[in-house]
Amino acid sequence: MHQRSPKSSFKYIAFEGIDGSGKTTQAKRFYSYLQNLGYNVFYTKEPGGADERLRELILNHRWNKKSELFLFLADRALNSDIIRIRLDEGNLVVSDRSMFSTLAYQGFGEGFDLDFLFELNLFATGGLKPDLIFCFDIDMETMKERVKNPDVIELKSKEFFERVRNGYIHLAETERDFFLIDGRKAEDEIFEEVKRIWESL
Amino acid sequence: MHQRSPKSSFKYIAFEGIDGSGKTTQAKRFYSYLQNLGYNVFYTKEPGGADERLRELILNHRWNKKSELFLFLADRALNSDIIRIRLDEGNLVVSDRSMFSTLAYQGFGEGFDLDFLFELNLFATGGLKPDLIFCFDIDMETMKERVKNPDVIELKSKEFFERVRNGYIHLAETERDFFLIDGRKAEDEIFEEVKRIWESL
Repeated sequence: MHQRSPKSSFKYIAFEGIDGSGKTTQAKRFYSYLQNLGYNVFYTKEPGGADERLRELILNHRWNKKSELFLFLADRALNSDIIRIRLDEGNLVVSDRSMFSTLAYQGFGEGFDLDFLFELNLFATGGLKPDLIFCFDIDMETMKERVKNPDVIELKSKEFFERVRNGYIHLAETERDFFLIDGRKAEDEIFEEVKRIWESL
Repeated sequence: MHQRSPKSSFKYIAFEGIDGSGKTTQAKRFYSYLQNLGYNVFYTKEPGGADERLRELILNHRWNKKSELFLFLADRALNSDIIRIRLDEGNLVVSDRSMFSTLAYQGFGEGFDLDFLFELNLFATGGLKPDLIFCFDIDMETMKERVKNPDVIELKSKEFFERVRNGYIHLAETERDFFLIDGRKAEDEIFEEVKRIWESL
């Protein structure tokens, strides 16, 4: 059972899941939903929220595992500066991916030590981490159907994505305010669940 | 000319110093010198030895300190894979900059913890570090005279470069086989000193 915190403490909201899980669609819908409720909301994504050149560099070229990890951290260090400014201005922040992607992909997927990754991430962000995570779970068949023009990350093996998927499931069990949602359902049904969780906090 | 076997413990030779210190000139001369002696030598540089796009990205755009650090580490993780292959093939490796640049610039210059940087660098390189370092020391006036078209790193403050310079001096005092050479002397005179040190090993 998830530990609940007062709603005032949910300001930085991340959307997570493997590629094709629907997180980008849901993040954008949730962003509009919050705006319509009258909140000031800032939308960002990783990689590339602060610098599109880094996203291009990361996703369109082959790197070794460590270089890839460091490029994601460089991107995150940049993005977290902007997120902090937006939070300080009183915004809610909705982010498509976060440090939990690195834990899932580079930790569970590539096998880097989780404590080391956690430490590196908190160094990169100056201690900033999402307050609330919506994570969408899909199986490998659903992923394959949905991802049509794979980037270099999306081209990794089925076994890799099984580990990433299981990593997210593990994070949902161990991390506070980390909600795992069945991503195979219809888009509207999933969004109703996101809203239901948000309203229940 | 018959192929010489590398001197047993000095195979990976790095050239270090602040911008304008003459390290690139000396590294290239030393590379040719070793080739003329009959060694198989591989020449590389950081950043960009393995991927010129990373060099371009690092040196031509402004980053925050942490992003800059991670970009250098991404570059180094890539480059060290190539260095390791070349060493395994029996080459000597001459490199314009190395992990010691990160200790000097991001450690002494930017103020990141040195032990943390050392650990991160060894993680990036899988434990590989230069066996021998030639470092060229110049004062701020000499640097200013020599650097004509500064990149974003070279545009940092005089105080920054004083700290980096002092960092190199400290490293020369504490690190094994780290030779500090007066970089204000004439190019030929400096090269004679490099050769003298090499031949004395």
